[in-house]
Parts: sequence; C-alpha cells; structure tokens
Amino acid sequence: MRPVPHLMTLADLSVAQIHWILIHAHHLKQTSLPWLAPQAAVVPGAVYKKPPSLRMPSQSLFNKSVALLFSKRSTRTRVAAETAAVLLGGRALFLGREDIQLGVNESVRDSARVIGGMCEGIFARVGAHEEIEELARYSPVPVLNALSSLWHPTQILADLLTLHEHAHLFSGSPAPAPAAPVRKGGKGGKGDKVAMLAPLRPLTVAYVGDSANVLHDMLVAYPRLGHKLRVASPEHERYRAPRAVWDRVVQLGIEKDIFWTKDPREAVQGADLVVTDTWISMGQEGEKEQRLKDFQGYQVTEQLCREGGANPDWKFMHCLPRKEHEVDDEVFYGPRSLVFPEADNRKWTIMALFDLLFGKWSLLEHRTNMPGEGLAGQAPSSDA
Amino acid sequence: MRPVPHLMTLADLSVAQIHWILIHAHHLKQTSLPWLAPQAAVVPGAVYKKPPSLRMPSQSLFNKSVALLFSKRSTRTRVAAETAAVLLGGRALFLGREDIQLGVNESVRDSARVIGGMCEGIFARVGAHEEIEELARYSPVPVLNALSSLWHPTQILADLLTLHEHAHLFSGSPAPAPAAPVRKGGKGGKGDKVAMLAPLRPLTVAYVGDSANVLHDMLVAYPRLGHKLRVASPEHERYRAPRAVWDRVVQLGIEKDIFWTKDPREAVQGADLVVTDTWISMGQEGEKEQRLKDFQGYQVTEQLCREGGANPDWKFMHCLPRKEHEVDDEVFYGPRSLVFPEADNRKWTIMALFDLLFGKWSLLEHRTNMPGEGLAGQAPSSDA
Amino acid sequence: MRPVPHLMTLADLSVAQIHWILIHAHHLKQTSLPWLAPQAAVVPGAVYKKPPSLRMPSQSLFNKSVALLFSKRSTRTRVAAETAAVLLGGRALFLGREDIQLGVNESVRDSARVIGGMCEGIFARVGAHEEIEELARYSPVPVLNALSSLWHPTQILADLLTLHEHAHLFSGSPAPAPAAPVRKGGKGGKGDKVAMLAPLRPLTVAYVGDSANVLHDMLVAYPRLGHKLRVASPEHERYRAPRAVWDRVVQLGIEKDIFWTKDPREAVQGADLVVTDTWISMGQEGEKEQRLKDFQGYQVTEQLCREGGANPDWKFMHCLPRKEHEVDDEVFYGPRSLVFPEADNRKWTIMALFDLLFGKWSLLEHRTNMPGEGLAGQAPSSDA
Repeated sequence: MRPVPHLMTLADLSVAQIHWILIHAHHLKQTSLPWLAPQAAVVPGAVYKKPPSLRMPSQSLFNKSVALLFSKRSTRTRVAAETAAVLLGGRALFLGREDIQLGVNESVRDSARVIGGMCEGIFARVGAHEEIEELARYSPVPVLNALSSLWHPTQILADLLTLHEHAHLFSGSPAPAPAAPVRKGGKGGKGDKVAMLAPLRPLTVAYVGDSANVLHDMLVAYPRLGHKLRVASPEHERYRAPRAVWDRVVQLGIEKDIFWTKDPREAVQGADLVVTDTWISMGQEGEKEQRLKDFQGYQVTEQLCREGGANPDWKFMHCLPRKEHEVDDEVFYGPRSLVFPEADNRKWTIMALFDLLFGKWSLLEHRTNMPGEGLAGQAPSSDA
Repeated sequence: MRPVPHLMTLADLSVAQIHWILIHAHHLKQTSLPWLAPQAAVVPGAVYKKPPSLRMPSQSLFNKSVALLFSKRSTRTRVAAETAAVLLGGRALFLGREDIQLGVNESVRDSARVIGGMCEGIFARVGAHEEIEELARYSPVPVLNALSSLWHPTQILADLLTLHEHAHLFSGSPAPAPAAPVRKGGKGGKGDKVAMLAPLRPLTVAYVGDSANVLHDMLVAYPRLGHKLRVASPEHERYRAPRAVWDRVVQLGIEKDIFWTKDPREAVQGADLVVTDTWISMGQEGEKEQRLKDFQGYQVTEQLCREGGANPDWKFMHCLPRKEHEVDDEVFYGPRSLVFPEADNRKWTIMALFDLLFGKWSLLEHRTNMPGEGLAGQAPSSDA
Repeated sequence: MRPVPHLMTLADLSVAQIHWILIHAHHLKQTSLPWLAPQAAVVPGAVYKKPPSLRMPSQSLFNKSVALLFSKRSTRTRVAAETAAVLLGGRALFLGREDIQLGVNESVRDSARVIGGMCEGIFARVGAHEEIEELARYSPVPVLNALSSLWHPTQILADLLTLHEHAHLFSGSPAPAPAAPVRKGGKGGKGDKVAMLAPLRPLTVAYVGDSANVLHDMLVAYPRLGHKLRVASPEHERYRAPRAVWDRVVQLGIEKDIFWTKDPREAVQGADLVVTDTWISMGQEGEKEQRLKDFQGYQVTEQLCREGGANPDWKFMHCLPRKEHEVDDEVFYGPRSLVFPEADNRKWTIMALFDLLFGKWSLLEHRTNMPGEGLAGQAPSSDA
C-alpha cells in the first residue's frame, strides 16, 4: 500500500518541494481571487452567474472533511484552514480543547485511528511535538503540523510566499519570468495566463526574539533557499534552539549560514528583512516577568535597525498576534511592514498543502527537478 | 477603489433599500423552500435528482466564507446565519467567546484586518456598539451588525417580512399585485412565477418593554415605512432610548410618529400589533430584581390589550427567547402569535443580506426608485 | 400533512427497515469511497477532475443543514455526523453545551420549533430520554436520537453493518449473492456494480458489562435479526435494563432469546461475538469506585473467553472510547478486534439515516417486503 504522507516540518521537504508548494499556493491564490470578488450589482431576483471565462480553483476536497485538532486557541491558522477547505470544496471540522482532549478520555493512538478513519486529513495544533508524531504514526490519512512545541511549517511557507510576492521591494531581485499559459480546465478554461511567482534574490534575514517554533522552521528552510540568517536571542539555554531542532540543521549541513548573537543590533546588520515573534508563547505566562526583562532592548524599531546597520530598505514580518513591546507602531503599521499580506498568505499556503497533501497525496512524490527549482537566485547550499 | 459597504442599523438605509431587502428575502425564501423540501421516497441505491424545473437559489457565496464574530451566546441569529450561508453555497464560520476574544490577545483593528483578509464578510455580535464600528473601520470586507448594545437591524427586517407575509390578517391591507415572472436563470429556469410580497396597510404598533436594541431599530424604521409607534417603558433614564439612538430619530425627522408613555395600557391603544422583548438583556443579570419590579404590569395578556383598547384583531411578536413574565402562554402560543414565523424569517432576511452585502456588495447602490418603493400603503414620512 | 418521521430506537423499526438502512449504508460507503480516495499526483496548476465513470453519492442534503444538539461531549458521533453531512452535500451544525442549553434559557418546546424551522433535521444527544421525546413532539423536521439515557440506535446499526461486512469470519455464513447492477445515475453512471452486503448466519452474541443505552438497542434488535443474546451484568438493580426498555422487549415478544446472568464466563459460552462498553457512563463519575468493584472479573480477555467456552473464532466489538479495565490490549488491538471498522461504520450508517430520514423522509414508508428482507439466515422471531 502507498505510504501515508505527513508533514511535520520544512526540514522534511526538499528545496524543490518547498518551491512547488509556493508556486502552487500562488497559482491557487491567483485563480481563487476572481471567484471570491464581490459580484456586480444585480437586480433583485436575478440569478448569480460567474463570468464564463473564470477557471474554478481545485476542488480536490469536494465533499471531503479535514479534522482540525487544536489543543491551543488559534485565530489565523484556524480561519485560514477553514476558509481554505471551503474553497477546495470541502469542510474543515474544528475540534478544540472543549471538544476533544487528546490522550485524556482516549489514547492518542485510538483517536488518530478513529478520526483518521472518518476524515481525509488531520491538521493538528498540539502541545508537545511527540503528540503529533504519535498522531502521524497511527493515522490512516495525512497529518499536517499546524504548530507544535518544535515546529511551525505553515507559517514559514506563508512568509516565503509573501517575500516572493514582494520581491520587487528588494533591489537586485531578478525580473520575473513572463506569464506562462495555464493548462486548460475541463470546460470554461481558456488558457488564462497566471502571473508567475517572482524570483527572489538571496536575502539577509534577521530574527530578533525567542527561539521558538517559528524560528526553528526558518533555521531549516532559509539557508537552503539561499538566504543568510542572523539570529539574536538572550543568553540563556531556554532561548536557544533545542537539540532536536539543531540536529536537523546540522544534518542538512546549513549551520554555517546561521549566525547567532545575543545583541539585536549585531543581528540586524545588513538585514533586508527583520522578523520577530511573541516573547511569551502559550504556556509560558508564568515566566512573563523574567522574559520581559531578558528581552529588554529587543523591540524592533527604526532606531534599532539604524544603529545596527540594517539595509535602509529593510522590511518587517511578524506572525501575529503582536504585542507592542515586540515592535513599535511606527514599524508595525508603517510602509516597511508586510505583516498583513503575510497573514493573508496563511490561507493560500495552507490551501496549497490541503490540496497537495490531503486532496491528492502528491506532495511527497516530487523531490527533484520541479519547474520551481531555482526560484531563489542562488543554488541551495544543501538538500535533504 | 470601491468603498466597502457595511450595515450597522436600518437608520443607514433608505426606505427603498429596506423594501429591496424584504422583496429579495421573500424571493430567496420562495425559491429555496422547494429545494429544501424532503424528496419523495426512492428505492435504495437510486440517484437523487432535483426536479428539473426548480430554480436554484443564489449561489453568491459559493465556496466563500463568512466569519461570525459572536462575543455573546446566540441560537437564532447563529443558526439563521449558518444555514443561510449554506444555502448560498458558502460557509459561516462561528467564532465565539471561547474562540476569539476581540481586543484581548490582539487589537480589534488587527483582528478586523486579518479575519477580513480571509473571509468575504463579517457578521458580528459584540458588546459595546463602538466595537463593531471599529471592526468596520478596518475590515477590508463588509461588516454586518448581528446585535450591538444599540442596534439589532436583522431582527427588525425579519419582523417586517413577517408582517408583509401576514398582511391579510390586518383588515384593510391592499390586495397583493399579481405574481410577476422571474428573470430566467442560466439553465433549467423556466420563468417560474414567484408570488409577490403583499403590501401592508399602515399599522399602529405598540412596543411594551425595555428600550433596547430591538426597539431602537424599530424607532428608525417603522415610522418611515408608514407605521405609527406607541412605546411603553418604565419611568427611568435607563429605560429610555440613549442619545445616540434618538439623535438618529430626530435626524430622520420621524419623532412625531413615536408616542412614548410609561403606561402599557395607553401604549396598546388602537394597536394592530403588540411587540415585546426580554426585560433583562445579557449583562444585566445583576439588575434582575429591580427590573422585575419596574416592569410590573407589563406582561402582554388578553386582559391588558382589552383594557388598553387594542384593535380586537391585534397580533403579537417577540424576538425570543421568551420568559413567561413578558407574555403569558395564552397569547404566546395562541392564534395572535406570529413569533415562530418571525423566528423562521431571521433566516431569510439574513440570507438576503448575506447575498446582497457579502456576495454582491450591491446593497448600498440602490438608494432610490427601486421596484419595491411604495410597498407600504402610505408615503414614507421621511427618507435618509 | 405528511407526519414528520423521527427515530428514537431500533425498537421503532421493522426488521425490513433495519435491513434497508444497512443495505443503503453499504451502498453509500461503496459509492463514496472512490470519491474520497486521494487523487493521483498532478502537475501544479492542473485542474482536478474526477474519473468520469465514478458515480456521485446521494446529494439529498445539498445546501441543507442538520442541527447537532449535543448536550454531551462526543467525538465519534459528532465527527461521523459532520463528515456524513458534508458527503451528502450539506452541513451539520454542531451546537454543544456551551452553545445551547436546552431548557435553560428557552423551553425545549420553543427551541425545537425554532431550530427545526431553520434546519432540515435534528440529530440530538441529550441527557434524559424524555428530552428527546419532547424535541420530537414539537420539531417540524425529523429528530434522530444520537444517544439518550435509554437508547443508542446509531451505534447498533454500525455494529450490524460491521458484522455483515465481516460475515466471512463467522464460519457457516451463507455465501453472498452476486453483485447486482446499480441503477444508472443521471449522467456518468455506467451501471457500476456494487458488491452486495453479505448475509450473516445467526450468531451468539455475548454482552459483558453495564446495561446502558448500547445494550438496550441490542436487546430490541439482535433477537429479531435471528441472533441470540447472552448478557452478563452485576447483580444490582442499576445494572439491569430499565422498565421502559424491557417493556419494549416484551412487546416485541423476543425476551425468550435473551439470556441474562451475573457471571461473565457463563455469558460468553458459545459466543461468536463478545461486546462490551464503558462501565462508567457520563454523569456516573461519582459511582466510579463502586462500579469498578462491581465489575471485577468483567474484563474481556483471552482467558475469560477460553474459560467460558466461547467459540474459538470469537470476535470483539466496543463502541469506544475504551478503558483498559474493560478489555485488555491483547484482545483490543489483536486480530479478533473489529473495533476500528466498527468506528468507521458510524459514519456510513449515520449517513444512511441522514439521507433517508432528513433528506428524503422516506425511512418509515418501507415497512415490509423490502429487498433486504431475510438478510440474516433465519426468519426473525418477531416484527413490530
């Protein structure tokens, strides 16, 4: 039997696969937006008709269901997943803490088998990473990591799509290829052209903050895509990447492209992009006081980046929700900020994964020689 | 760019727009009911086929999502919204208090932008009215008020549709126009005739109870539609319309058609319709004892209406859920009661708004000269 | 007007109707599985197309909504119901304890009328059985019992489907009839053959555990289908079938086919199938210590069944979630266990009921002479 494909972290994917997901997300976004646009005013009683030239997005979840097993509260990931499933013709079924307590009334093993027997995919936001590994071990359908203690792959895919879409903001990025004709659909498709996803020049990316799941997936993805990573985190064991994460970095042979410091000024030196995240993750509320103290001076501001010598055109990203101590209003709501397009792209990248992983089980079959290969301007330094 | 249309209160709408919504709701109801009817018995294994002459209701939310941001518990509004979205081909995504705490983990501004970036409409039931205004300020998609501290527009639309459907119960209402042919659909449509919504003669409407959001939208709508309003509420500032509401009444120039008293008997004088609502809204549980005392004598009964001199054919409406102190069983479950058709119509009027506001963005474009103009038997006393 | 059909317990159904549901569930499962299978890998941007020869499962809930009124937490029943509704083209709307408190803010009567006025069916998991009877009394649409204090009909239908599907495991079962051609669909249907549901020889079924709702529906169904029931429960009033249940057994004239003992060894004598359930139902947590004591020796194990003289080929079923004190790992995860196919079949039998009861209102019209009649190898001993 065909093995069930799962996705726990971007470290599991080749560069070609990452590119493929991004290209597919871009394609789904471009074909879906005209469908989602409001219709022109019509007279009462008139029948709603799509313009005949529109191509429908993939319906690979038509009448199918995806279980969202979320033991943590979520807005972005949940809404992205639910709306993406609807667009694919299916339904995401939210099961929160109040609905199901994994491992309490029933073993994780039994729940994985039972829920996987009724749904066509499981998108799980659990606590300890071992829990989602256990789900994947026993689920008869693909399990996608929506956030674990170690990894957050869907966030980094959204970040990457956002960067490609804004490649023109980074001077020196190569010009995009001309729009290629899209394969014709069953009916109504007229070979509409969809703009190609723009290539991106190698960036210097600064991450200023806690070493949590968002950073971890950056560590295993960005260097392989040709980007340099500069990380600032306070000098304490708890703010460093855990062993399980660093082992994957070393295994991928990309540790040389990651620079780590405790000084946020040093981290942003030459940065084209500055990224941060919450200082106090869910479950760490008890450490709040200590953490606020340790992150003194880590707030992302114009001054910090000027003093640190960032590229004058630096841009800013944050996975949200945002607290003001992490980044001030001037940056967050200013022209450098990509945070809202980044949030929008949670939907399109999750939609691509739902389509490829849950709808088609085809994600893990394309490991090499994809048309997306070489999207970044530099050869990847390593590949799994 | 086209401005995003929102709807906070019926005071924002012209008489023509209100009529248009009612006509459209009636049309959606008439075309949907045959689709929803149970199918004739079939043999096992037979394929389900809709009779070919049926016309499908609008699918303007096909594969689209509407966020229900509900910080208060709800049955009617929620179920109406979720089932209406399904009928329009889309999905309403319920986000309750447990799911999202507006303004707590994230500013209302950021939540509006993020959720609005993933959904095609926001149907919000908040606490303070300022909160929904803030949502509308930053949302990239239309925001519809599902209930706020000040207004409850979708309830009053359901009430009006119910009255038009029961116009024959009010002697003297003009005869309905003959059924007009409906525009043909893309396929299968055969120009089916849908019964016109019946006109309604000017009514005397008595509201007996607390001045809360239900009454407020009656104040800004009924007089403009040609109906007289007689309100009884206890003599205390808290039972009067707040300044923000009364300012809209004055601005619309309709205060002369509203009579206010503290005596429920005086209010029901000549009434064709008696309306009440809860005496203790959510959040007012602490004032329960005081309120029960203040509303002594406000229970709607046969005796009250007889003594007050209501039209012998008076009808009764209540937005539910109902407590017995507000209205006795004889009236509530008796032949005067329109409460259950009224509840059913929450679905059809919300469906009309979802279609026009979220699916088509066309609601606010028709301010004058609509075919619905003049549904009531009397010229509106004013119009925004 | 046509009376609204409800389903509270299998005691309400004839043997023919039970067979019809099973045949229909099997048919829906066989036609749905190819639709739900992952698609072959496609190139990015390609349009998803179903193989043209596939027949679509019934869409009798197309754009329709089913309310799930669940005052108790649930995983299996809920996920089964939600995914089944999606497959039928509709939507199940989950209303849990936090969403609606039946009888608290509003009478059960009013809630039944209002929710039934907006949805096309109600699937209710309540506490006291009287509550669901009250729902059915006032609902304008069919009410299906998802679990009550007395009955659990959908579980037993899933169990029966599982037994028929595994009929080959019980030596002596008659050979299945050849696959019959399925009626052609509107388009695309090519008269695909669907394997007939296999007949099942009369079984000896042992139930070892508490007399709760699962057992109660076994009591009114298994003997009529030709199977013998042997029940072991501790010697105390609370572990016996309540009067309301036993009255139905007597009324059906099948009490002679039910053997009751306090000795689990005696119960499993000659058993082809051993079934158990939780010892501590929701709401009985306070009796936990007493119950654990009373059920000493009731754990289903290889040893128990060997000592009791079960058929050496005995199989095991459990409705889940499972605690280890009820059945040990060797049996539960071993080759005798049918528990996971049994869980999967919750979906297909609920889908059949949603289709027949909510979509078509046709379930109760076929009381006799159905093609399913005589699926079991023995004439039913009685029929309602």
